[in-house]
Amino acid sequence: MNTSRESVYLDYQSAKPVDPRVVEAMEPFLHDRFGNPSSLHAVGDDATDTLDRSRETVARFLGARPAEVVFTSGATESSNLAIIGYAMRNRRKGDHIVISEMEHISIHNIAKYLEKNGFQVSRVPLDQFGQINLAKLRGRIRDETILISVGMASNEIGTVQPIREIAEMLEGKGIVLHTDAVAAQGLLSLDVDGLGIDLMPLSSNAFYGPRGLGALYIRKGTRLSPMLIGGGQERGLRSGSENMPAIVGMARAVEILGEEMDDEVDRLRGYRDRLIGGLLDSVPKTYLNGHPEQRLASNAHFRFTGIEGESLLLRLRDEGIQVATGSACSSKTLEPSHTLIACGLLHEEAHGSLELTLGRWNGPEDVDRALEAIPKVVSDLRALSPLYKEDE
Amino acid sequence: MNTSRESVYLDYQSAKPVDPRVVEAMEPFLHDRFGNPSSLHAVGDDATDTLDRSRETVARFLGARPAEVVFTSGATESSNLAIIGYAMRNRRKGDHIVISEMEHISIHNIAKYLEKNGFQVSRVPLDQFGQINLAKLRGRIRDETILISVGMASNEIGTVQPIREIAEMLEGKGIVLHTDAVAAQGLLSLDVDGLGIDLMPLSSNAFYGPRGLGALYIRKGTRLSPMLIGGGQERGLRSGSENMPAIVGMARAVEILGEEMDDEVDRLRGYRDRLIGGLLDSVPKTYLNGHPEQRLASNAHFRFTGIEGESLLLRLRDEGIQVATGSACSSKTLEPSHTLIACGLLHEEAHGSLELTLGRWNGPEDVDRALEAIPKVVSDLRALSPLYKEDE
Repeated sequence: MNTSRESVYLDYQSAKPVDPRVVEAMEPFLHDRFGNPSSLHAVGDDATDTLDRSRETVARFLGARPAEVVFTSGATESSNLAIIGYAMRNRRKGDHIVISEMEHISIHNIAKYLEKNGFQVSRVPLDQFGQINLAKLRGRIRDETILISVGMASNEIGTVQPIREIAEMLEGKGIVLHTDAVAAQGLLSLDVDGLGIDLMPLSSNAFYGPRGLGALYIRKGTRLSPMLIGGGQERGLRSGSENMPAIVGMARAVEILGEEMDDEVDRLRGYRDRLIGGLLDSVPKTYLNGHPEQRLASNAHFRFTGIEGESLLLRLRDEGIQVATGSACSSKTLEPSHTLIACGLLHEEAHGSLELTLGRWNGPEDVDRALEAIPKVVSDLRALSPLYKEDE
Repeated sequence: MNTSRESVYLDYQSAKPVDPRVVEAMEPFLHDRFGNPSSLHAVGDDATDTLDRSRETVARFLGARPAEVVFTSGATESSNLAIIGYAMRNRRKGDHIVISEMEHISIHNIAKYLEKNGFQVSRVPLDQFGQINLAKLRGRIRDETILISVGMASNEIGTVQPIREIAEMLEGKGIVLHTDAVAAQGLLSLDVDGLGIDLMPLSSNAFYGPRGLGALYIRKGTRLSPMLIGGGQERGLRSGSENMPAIVGMARAVEILGEEMDDEVDRLRGYRDRLIGGLLDSVPKTYLNGHPEQRLASNAHFRFTGIEGESLLLRLRDEGIQVATGSACSSKTLEPSHTLIACGLLHEEAHGSLELTLGRWNGPEDVDRALEAIPKVVSDLRALSPLYKEDE
């Protein structure tokens, strides 16, 4: 980390360091083994072999076949290829898609793009814990519905969605299930058959792999139009020379998770529960956002009555604690989180929210530091606030 | 390189090693300085500063303003964003574009995509040296023409196009000039104002930077529709969390070129001329493809009567010499090069072609090795060929 030794990073949801073991695996491919898989000579063959093996590693982790995994430049491109690519290719089957209100901001924007291009989009509301209601989802399905998008878990409040139940409900309906798994990577099973997912975007960095790489799981038989036109790489679905060092890195990141994920999830869950218990106990008028049980092991999300999230973030920053107030990709806009609003929070409640997300390099001392600093900062800010009254 | 010490790599056009100085610059950003520029805390601020400085470095190298440079996942995405993004956004101005027959295969495929989507595309033929004819280009311009695409140089035969003259001809016509500069990166000036280019895709790897990153120069006032929808990064033109380590690497690669390019081009030109002179002198019935003078300093491209390029490539591979027969992105298809056909070559002549491209880690001994091996292999293959007769 670039901050001083005492700094505590609790914003793993918005960016993760690349695991040093992943960096080590990538390094030979930067300078020495730099070939293009399209070349016919030995350097190119080495790249082709490496590409095949990396794809197998990633596919195995998902319980998928190698031919069902396409590498992209990141989760955003994967979601674009999945949703826009499916909608454009299958327009004749229907012009209606359904998305959950919990979806990542990028998927909301993709849905708006489709609306501008003649598609109908329905949105499924969330309950107060951020879960979608299955009956309401069912009620939005029409004859023209071709795709449903429900993320595996919220990248903001950490609520986990009942993906398997949704897939079971869709069975035999000819509707494709798109599940953005990015927030859940490294925390929940991504077994595509067990879950019944047809299209699943992934981010390499969310596995502690390099940035600038993603993948899309595409169930066999699911036809997409490409988003990027060019040399026809990735069976025509994703043109552009393959980013070999990053692909090797993503595969290594997946291997590491295969060995360590269960223990790591237990460890993070312990930290999370200590954070939640500690703050709810010690800070008055503090509430947990998201679901009390069905939540990611890494996610603790609070709201503090009478406080602006931005002030809280900046004061904690002075204390060497790095946190987020909303979703990483829109936090600089200062708009209230669409997910919190969809859970029924008022604007001022949403604005008073704090997201703590744990990860691989957090230790127990980070939890101690957060439990020490946050109550103090909240209390200081409330003392300055003309709006906050302790006994209300 | 992954091959033995004696291996000679002469296929820099299809893939370049990342310069070790670039790798060194990237490393701190993989694990320690891993922030997301969208985050509001100190780790995020560090990323924002780094992003701004890197963009300035790249822009300065092009004589452009930082706001005119957008980072993408590579040259393919940049070309898509430039051509499809411009066509879709400016459709009301006209539905006609012109491309040169020399364009990279990805741009030919983008043009076909636009044709399927209701645009008209005209193609400008090449002379025998691979240059476009300005009068023929002028003759293809209509009232409905909104964009002309002529690459700076051929990624196959190395012929350099008269970009400045094309830009002068277009002046005041309201037609945007798109110039794919990838093949020329590190070899020719990319001064966008001097050349009069409006849209210019770049590849980081073509500067000896990391893969999986590209940029697009967009002249101020040129409006594009985005290709990837999402969190709205890069002023809405390219959503997706920024690939910071790669962006830092591309900026470092550009800095190195700023210092070394002139000397390196002279050095490579010397090697190239020795290759061309040596092979034309020592191998009978051998011809240079492309322009004798207006060609990239790194490119030597030959055809040998009576020989199959694939056999030549495979035999040279056995000799430890790595070369290409056509364009990197389509070489595994074994189709004849569209550029050579456009220069008027017969299919069998195109198939008998060999592309040698030089780069940063070539030394004089590589030229010696090539001059020794190629005549021998050509002579062996001709001895086996029922078609080749020495005295014809």
